[in-house]
Amino acid sequence: MSDRIWSVYLSGEIHSDWRERIATGIAEAGLPVELTSPVTVHEDSDDCGVAIFGSEQDKFWHDRKGAQLNAIRTRTLIEEADLVVVRFGEKYKQWNAAFDAGFAAALGTPYITLHPTDHDHALKEVDGAAMAVAREPEQVVQALAYVIRGEMPKSSAKAAAE
Amino acid sequence: MSDRIWSVYLSGEIHSDWRERIATGIAEAGLPVELTSPVTVHEDSDDCGVAIFGSEQDKFWHDRKGAQLNAIRTRTLIEEADLVVVRFGEKYKQWNAAFDAGFAAALGTPYITLHPTDHDHALKEVDGAAMAVAREPEQVVQALAYVIRGEMPKSSAKAAAE
Amino acid sequence: MSDRIWSVYLSGEIHSDWRERIATGIAEAGLPVELTSPVTVHEDSDDCGVAIFGSEQDKFWHDRKGAQLNAIRTRTLIEEADLVVVRFGEKYKQWNAAFDAGFAAALGTPYITLHPTDHDHALKEVDGAAMAVAREPEQVVQALAYVIRGEMPKSSAKAAAE
Amino acid sequence: MSDRIWSVYLSGEIHSDWRERIATGIAEAGLPVELTSPVTVHEDSDDCGVAIFGSEQDKFWHDRKGAQLNAIRTRTLIEEADLVVVRFGEKYKQWNAAFDAGFAAALGTPYITLHPTDHDHALKEVDGAAMAVAREPEQVVQALAYVIRGEMPKSSAKAAAE
Amino acid sequence: MSDRIWSVYLSGEIHSDWRERIATGIAEAGLPVELTSPVTVHEDSDDCGVAIFGSEQDKFWHDRKGAQLNAIRTRTLIEEADLVVVRFGEKYKQWNAAFDAGFAAALGTPYITLHPTDHDHALKEVDGAAMAVAREPEQVVQALAYVIRGEMPKSSAKAAAE
Amino acid sequence: MSDRIWSVYLSGEIHSDWRERIATGIAEAGLPVELTSPVTVHEDSDDCGVAIFGSEQDKFWHDRKGAQLNAIRTRTLIEEADLVVVRFGEKYKQWNAAFDAGFAAALGTPYITLHPTDHDHALKEVDGAAMAVAREPEQVVQALAYVIRGEMPKSSAKAAAE
Amino acid sequence: MSDRIWSVYLSGEIHSDWRERIATGIAEAGLPVELTSPVTVHEDSDDCGVAIFGSEQDKFWHDRKGAQLNAIRTRTLIEEADLVVVRFGEKYKQWNAAFDAGFAAALGTPYITLHPTDHDHALKEVDGAAMAVAREPEQVVQALAYVIRGEMPKSSAKAAAE
Amino acid sequence: MSDRIWSVYLSGEIHSDWRERIATGIAEAGLPVELTSPVTVHEDSDDCGVAIFGSEQDKFWHDRKGAQLNAIRTRTLIEEADLVVVRFGEKYKQWNAAFDAGFAAALGTPYITLHPTDHDHALKEVDGAAMAVAREPEQVVQALAYVIRGEMPKSSAKAAAE
Repeated sequence: MSDRIWSVYLSGEIHSDWRERIATGIAEAGLPVELTSPVTVHEDSDDCGVAIFGSEQDKFWHDRKGAQLNAIRTRTLIEEADLVVVRFGEKYKQWNAAFDAGFAAALGTPYITLHPTDHDHALKEVDGAAMAVAREPEQVVQALAYVIRGEMPKSSAKAAAE
Repeated sequence: MSDRIWSVYLSGEIHSDWRERIATGIAEAGLPVELTSPVTVHEDSDDCGVAIFGSEQDKFWHDRKGAQLNAIRTRTLIEEADLVVVRFGEKYKQWNAAFDAGFAAALGTPYITLHPTDHDHALKEVDGAAMAVAREPEQVVQALAYVIRGEMPKSSAKAAAE
Repeated sequence: MSDRIWSVYLSGEIHSDWRERIATGIAEAGLPVELTSPVTVHEDSDDCGVAIFGSEQDKFWHDRKGAQLNAIRTRTLIEEADLVVVRFGEKYKQWNAAFDAGFAAALGTPYITLHPTDHDHALKEVDGAAMAVAREPEQVVQALAYVIRGEMPKSSAKAAAE
Repeated sequence: MSDRIWSVYLSGEIHSDWRERIATGIAEAGLPVELTSPVTVHEDSDDCGVAIFGSEQDKFWHDRKGAQLNAIRTRTLIEEADLVVVRFGEKYKQWNAAFDAGFAAALGTPYITLHPTDHDHALKEVDGAAMAVAREPEQVVQALAYVIRGEMPKSSAKAAAE
Repeated sequence: MSDRIWSVYLSGEIHSDWRERIATGIAEAGLPVELTSPVTVHEDSDDCGVAIFGSEQDKFWHDRKGAQLNAIRTRTLIEEADLVVVRFGEKYKQWNAAFDAGFAAALGTPYITLHPTDHDHALKEVDGAAMAVAREPEQVVQALAYVIRGEMPKSSAKAAAE
Repeated sequence: MSDRIWSVYLSGEIHSDWRERIATGIAEAGLPVELTSPVTVHEDSDDCGVAIFGSEQDKFWHDRKGAQLNAIRTRTLIEEADLVVVRFGEKYKQWNAAFDAGFAAALGTPYITLHPTDHDHALKEVDGAAMAVAREPEQVVQALAYVIRGEMPKSSAKAAAE
Repeated sequence: MSDRIWSVYLSGEIHSDWRERIATGIAEAGLPVELTSPVTVHEDSDDCGVAIFGSEQDKFWHDRKGAQLNAIRTRTLIEEADLVVVRFGEKYKQWNAAFDAGFAAALGTPYITLHPTDHDHALKEVDGAAMAVAREPEQVVQALAYVIRGEMPKSSAKAAAE
Repeated sequence: MSDRIWSVYLSGEIHSDWRERIATGIAEAGLPVELTSPVTVHEDSDDCGVAIFGSEQDKFWHDRKGAQLNAIRTRTLIEEADLVVVRFGEKYKQWNAAFDAGFAAALGTPYITLHPTDHDHALKEVDGAAMAVAREPEQVVQALAYVIRGEMPKSSAKAAAE
């Protein structure tokens, strides 16, 4: 299994550094993981459609053009992912994250949610179809180290054994 | 096509009368539609798992048991639906509605979203994969009348023709 | 096999009476066939989206709203059809008919094309994935009588036997 | 994501230089894209079947043999494409382009249409299932740069930001 | 399970009375089985294509037209069958029977072969993907009685118990 | 939803009355459920293959013939089930029950396991892919009453509400 | 498209040199094709099962063990093939070749048949689902050169153009 | 076929050296096989979930967290395997092995069981859907050598020929 590259799609919140923390953890651990994600520059994600295919007077269609262009990327990457991580941050509606979770569930692609406990009740259906619920990005890295190499987390393994 | 029964799943908000308005409209129009939905009694939906399979000390697993029991119903009904209507109300996170939209999208089942314009930007990805965006439940009834029987809405048809 | 109802979707041209001729032939032969089709009133098919979901200033989005609403009907009916008949008339681009043929081909649903010999070369790819190429609607009825009941056409059978 | 090669199938018109313009744009931008297409030499595409498998007296079967041989190539390439671009030129019926769009739609493969505004109404169903509608090949290149690298088009980005 | 109708497709040889023997056995046992089959009138099966869609000078295309028209029937019925019975008689190539077996195998539809022991070695691949190998049509009826109702064959059950 | 019949397949142990208890509960509650199951007469299930298709000297092939004949029934019924209940009793290996659970999981069909707590650790992977874990057949009936009609269990509902 | 390797499975007859002729042609043309095939040593193909898993007294099970072991190879290779070539030689039943054709057809994998004209009528159903019918192995090589590189056969191209 | 790497997933028993014996045999034979497996350190497999995502008071949920984390690995590897080997040892329930067999069967992925003859009757359904039943790990290596390279086992081949 040494040569397998695991493809992990990072869906959801774009206003905190959770993707970087996962990327750093993976790099430090030397895990054979290729991370993918949506375009995370907020304005570009909003405006890409009209910037390329022409402006719209109506904001609704402005958004539509962007959403569909982004979907070319996100669907392709979710469909080829081995695992999806779906992050719900403290703020915002983040309906696209829940949409991605439902999309992954219907494809049979496993996903891990990553969110604070405050959201537990509101996310119970989304968590209910997940393979794990993480609170910190580092837990996702630990999960990948275990799934790919069978490595147990250092301190936690000790704690669990006590 | 006179004998075909269309199966329409009504996903999302459970705190307003939108399902009743659609049901009434369908009954008045005599449309061959079978409406399905999740269990819409909020507390039952929350507590069904522990009520049947035994209580849990931890609220997280209390929720899990309920969410998975509800999923037996919702997945089955979404999978056999010809059309899904996904309602986002004024309040609440409603992540399960977005999850259902993603699930339907991955199955290739068409869906219509139903929400106020305030949500347009936040729902742009969910709307972007929808076949239509409605503002009022009556528009869903009109859409069904057109899709099933080719009937145009009375007043609107006139307006469009002017 | 006496109780099986065959579902046949009639795709394409809406400006001649070919659907009626097939319907009449099926009724006269008493074949257990349920015919389905898109909405065939041209203006309604164009305007349904805006009539129900609200007008658009831009004709492009006016068309989009109609096309997607119509697609709820057409995709559902094509997906459940046992056979699709795709008609190309004398005039017009009729790209939606070719689209439906490609859609049926990818689903593995058999289809018969129905068009004059003038179109043969231009339709060679569409015909190449078809199970048969008919010139007259009555041939479609004969094909159904054979497929469903094993009945040979009366005069033609004689001719072939000579 | 740096190593992913995106496979893009260029379907449709063979009488203008749109494929070259896309290829040039991709090369200039250094995008990791592999372009595929049908055989675009018109006579070869017509005559390949009989040239290899033997001549036919009847033009209908001459065409059939060619169409089916070409389909080995086109179906394989469409099925493995991440994105399909469907070009409708000024002239000709181009039913095979619409067929390819329907085929991609049923597979769930995203596609972008590329055509002049004159065709908008006639192509409304084909556009309605597309992720974007482009007018110039360069817009397809810009879309790919955005989808793959998140790069916004230079001048347009400025315009959108103003 | 009392109301379930089992759909059984009878593929293969058309020159002996094996279909009738199965039909008689099913009728006598009152089993809830709907039998389907290809058109079994040999000449009609050969000539149906040209009789309906016009004659061909070349026997190859004469056959093609018939084969593809028959395929509309056979594929549809095989695809909806719960069980396929594939009969290989004493004579003839019967390649279409083996084709049907391969088709059913790829769909995951269970099938039973029915052939004399003489064919065992030549049919080892076809038998290897079958759920059972029968020698007489009455065994197929017994298998259906067991599969549907759990009924053991009368004399054989006794023999097995001794 | 009043007319929908839910198909529930009861997999596993054949040496206790759990199927009867579920059937009785469903009848008493008047639930629209059609129960299906493997043939539950142990000897018939073992001997059906040789009784119908001829005896075998080698017990291994005796078993094979039976197992494959039974599989025609079990696969068909599992594939069309809306829900599978997988029962593990006190004794025996019951590997076929675990096989059915894996089969259902891969199909995306929801299942409920039913087993005593003693088996919890050994069944953790099987339970991990289940929608619920029941201890008594009556809990399965309650789950069905909730899933189909939204009915909460009487005493339990009270307890949960306190 | 320069880097794509086409996977071509060569099914059927093992008693003539047709596979070698295709391999030679591909090597001479430098086509990017990977050829796969069943094990073509007749006795090994018959005896592999018992040689590895233990002998059987009954020839029927001797054959079964071999057939199923061979199927691990053949199904895997057919499922990943871009194209299947199905060869029917002058002699033998060759039911496994027809089985492979049916299997490929149900998977939607294109195939070319290769057989003398004597078999045309008996193979009409198998040919009817094929993309081409070849008479000589060299035609298969020419077809691959065209499909992959758009190259027309040298002499034939000239003939067709005259 | 020289470049193809076969992916083989080794499911089941973790208390004997069968995986090592297969790995050694493959290495000695130089077969192009990539072996994958679940995490085989028993305690880690049990505790991974709580070690990473936090401890649980209830052993049932402790197990659930581990089972689902392990499933990310096992499902992914089974789904991409060309062949699954399912080992049942002398002891333990080993329900997860049977679960994996059912999962592979539903996916259409071929599998070989590996178990002592004592288990034959209890495993008849699991064996009934297998492509082969092995008794020793070395037979699996021989099967792979045959499937991949067409190599017959040395001594056994001689024995079979006598």
